[in-house]
Amino acid sequence: MQFEQPIPVQWMADFTGAEIRGDEHQLATGINEIHMVKKGDISFVDFEKYYSKCLNSAATIIIINKDVPCPEGKTLLVTAEPFDVYNKIVKRFRPFEPASQMISPTAIIGENTTIQPGVFIGNHVTVGSNTLIHPNVTIYDNCVIGNNVVIHSGTVIGADAFYFKRRKDREVQYDKMLSCGRAVIEDDVEIGACCTVDRGVTGDTVIGRGTKLDNHIQIGHDTVVGRNCIMASQVGVAGVAHIEDEVILWGQVGVNKDLTIGKGAVVLAQSGVPASLEGGKTYFGTPVDDAKSKMRELAWIKRIPELWNKINNNAK
Amino acid sequence: MQFEQPIPVQWMADFTGAEIRGDEHQLATGINEIHMVKKGDISFVDFEKYYSKCLNSAATIIIINKDVPCPEGKTLLVTAEPFDVYNKIVKRFRPFEPASQMISPTAIIGENTTIQPGVFIGNHVTVGSNTLIHPNVTIYDNCVIGNNVVIHSGTVIGADAFYFKRRKDREVQYDKMLSCGRAVIEDDVEIGACCTVDRGVTGDTVIGRGTKLDNHIQIGHDTVVGRNCIMASQVGVAGVAHIEDEVILWGQVGVNKDLTIGKGAVVLAQSGVPASLEGGKTYFGTPVDDAKSKMRELAWIKRIPELWNKINNNAK
Amino acid sequence: MQFEQPIPVQWMADFTGAEIRGDEHQLATGINEIHMVKKGDISFVDFEKYYSKCLNSAATIIIINKDVPCPEGKTLLVTAEPFDVYNKIVKRFRPFEPASQMISPTAIIGENTTIQPGVFIGNHVTVGSNTLIHPNVTIYDNCVIGNNVVIHSGTVIGADAFYFKRRKDREVQYDKMLSCGRAVIEDDVEIGACCTVDRGVTGDTVIGRGTKLDNHIQIGHDTVVGRNCIMASQVGVAGVAHIEDEVILWGQVGVNKDLTIGKGAVVLAQSGVPASLEGGKTYFGTPVDDAKSKMRELAWIKRIPELWNKINNNAK
Repeated sequence: MQFEQPIPVQWMADFTGAEIRGDEHQLATGINEIHMVKKGDISFVDFEKYYSKCLNSAATIIIINKDVPCPEGKTLLVTAEPFDVYNKIVKRFRPFEPASQMISPTAIIGENTTIQPGVFIGNHVTVGSNTLIHPNVTIYDNCVIGNNVVIHSGTVIGADAFYFKRRKDREVQYDKMLSCGRAVIEDDVEIGACCTVDRGVTGDTVIGRGTKLDNHIQIGHDTVVGRNCIMASQVGVAGVAHIEDEVILWGQVGVNKDLTIGKGAVVLAQSGVPASLEGGKTYFGTPVDDAKSKMRELAWIKRIPELWNKINNNAK
Repeated sequence: MQFEQPIPVQWMADFTGAEIRGDEHQLATGINEIHMVKKGDISFVDFEKYYSKCLNSAATIIIINKDVPCPEGKTLLVTAEPFDVYNKIVKRFRPFEPASQMISPTAIIGENTTIQPGVFIGNHVTVGSNTLIHPNVTIYDNCVIGNNVVIHSGTVIGADAFYFKRRKDREVQYDKMLSCGRAVIEDDVEIGACCTVDRGVTGDTVIGRGTKLDNHIQIGHDTVVGRNCIMASQVGVAGVAHIEDEVILWGQVGVNKDLTIGKGAVVLAQSGVPASLEGGKTYFGTPVDDAKSKMRELAWIKRIPELWNKINNNAK
Repeated sequence: MQFEQPIPVQWMADFTGAEIRGDEHQLATGINEIHMVKKGDISFVDFEKYYSKCLNSAATIIIINKDVPCPEGKTLLVTAEPFDVYNKIVKRFRPFEPASQMISPTAIIGENTTIQPGVFIGNHVTVGSNTLIHPNVTIYDNCVIGNNVVIHSGTVIGADAFYFKRRKDREVQYDKMLSCGRAVIEDDVEIGACCTVDRGVTGDTVIGRGTKLDNHIQIGHDTVVGRNCIMASQVGVAGVAHIEDEVILWGQVGVNKDLTIGKGAVVLAQSGVPASLEGGKTYFGTPVDDAKSKMRELAWIKRIPELWNKINNNAK
């Protein structure tokens, strides 16, 4: 997320109660997670093993839970609870704005676009031209829908990231990381009925140009789906996945978070993808394997009784 | 379900056409299934193998399809079709009430709660305070939503139990058991987009305090989910399951009915759970096994060709 | 799809720019895919391997991308792009009609039928009597809903077929085949919450009398589900499948397109059905097998370490 105007880091320190280290005159232009920060951004880290990655990232301002030496040209905001500070900033700069009507007056709708009855379009949403949104679709605040897009009924674009920090010592153990990112649906995408595309935590979840999703599909937060992909019904893709162009996922495939599926890969129905896959190949199984190897494996399994007989005959 | 006021059992006999046995002066205070009856309740049984369980349950009044000796202190309502009698009573005491507006005037909404546009809230629903219900959510009659709850768009709370009695001799073979129970969402729960939490047949389906559900999750009737559980997208839990506290179910896991998953159990993605699981362990596979055993099993499968070669070499 | 009135084939040739061969005086009464054409229909073919099937089908008029000899009594419309011509005809004879209100004034609703708030009913929809449609359901144009039907919230009936032609040479590779068919829900059907039943491409998707669907179920275009079937939650059936009467599909089963599941077959939870299954049997696994064989296979897998030890002992 970018702020509407740059914010003095000293103001942030005062607002959050964090102690400032390093340059006290920086301006914060946005807040982002480590994997997508750029110059001017605030980022945050609360696990020692990610300190070095965060301190060496492009982030200009780092919220951190240890008083480490401040890298040259950066500012630290030291606090016991970086997670809470992050949430406090998000709440202040992207507060939830309740809606008073189905289509927000702040939404921008392109020419020749049809919005059917029962559609909710949140604040600051942009919808392109020649787009068709079928009845009872929900589009949360700040999302971006392109041109020539079709979205079928019951689909929900931009619901919150499913992202919680566990605190086992509390009665209510899961602490929600607030989402301030967006879901971006590029031109010429078609999304089936009863799908969900969650928004990014701080960045964008993207469905790339020309991609077609069938019904009941889940796309997690910060996942980037490339161009001209096909996903059949009931596919689930977790957060922060990267599905490259022209990937085909058949029905009920499940894809783990934090991985890449290479260009043109095909994953057969009901497979489970735990880790990155090379492009241009066909996969099958839970966990997935090269489809042909998997088929051979299934054939071998059927031969176990034959092996058993052979062993017994050998033993005679 | 409890009745609003106690009903004389003689009235029930007259209303249903059942023959009365035992104490004719009892008062019925509610109607419930065997597994959740209490004193004063009506229950019903139409399978001989459950007779003894039902007759020895806490139920005060038993609708039964055989003229068996009436246990001391109870009343029997003898009828050829206990199922039909149950449905007749439910229809009379909890009739379907069509809605004339999106938010029923009989609903009670707490302070600081935000109901976004397009939300349906049925009759006699209670929603706590500081709760946020996103657009196009549906909450059926009589459900209870706690404080600090978030429910995302497209989600349906309290639809009917999927519960049918098969009658092979009829043209329309499946006869619906009417639901009169509720869905209860406790405090601090978050439910993702396009989820379904069915109501209980006669009792409550419960999502326990602090539990977080991702998108596209199915929770069947009368299932009780404990506190601080996590379910990832597209998990399906059938009816009458008991998921204890702090259980984690990863994406696309399927859970059978009538079982218990013990406290703190973790079930890895796409697994299928056919029967009860001990708590505190990690499981994987369809049907699930201890995750490490399952991983070893998968490694062994890949070695079958090696076994084959060994056998052939031994044979030489 | 049938046209409202017969259309002269010469008009079609002029409208589409196709070259006419054979009888120039035919009347086209409808347009349908090969697998469901009847006399009077237009059909189309653009793959050489389907030429003979299409030319020998019941279709009276055939849109084709090669100037082949015209069979006796038929008419050919020869064009480089039969797919585009099909889409042009559908757009002309069944154009998308945007809605201006939640329940179309052209819809026909039967007696004693309850339509809850938030329901969208498109143009030319027919709903029978004694039917109950829960809040926030969407029914697309031209669908047919029978008598004594129950449809739960969030469900979408009649969304477009997921049917695209790939054109690898274009920037936007997937070209949508427009749907002009319907979804037909027969009498006494119950459909759970958040289900999707897509409409046929040119014909009907059918849910047969007395069939009951749980929540989150996907039924693809042109699939015909028989009578008195049961599908548990999160089942997905692809397009052009034929599920015969009294079939039971347990939770999260996936069914491929273009196949038949025979009468009374039972498919256990999470199974994947790649091809046709005989009726009257029980199946399990991905891909499915006879359930008992599959269970034995799973038992054999657990014995591989035992085989390994035996082999090693034999070798000594």
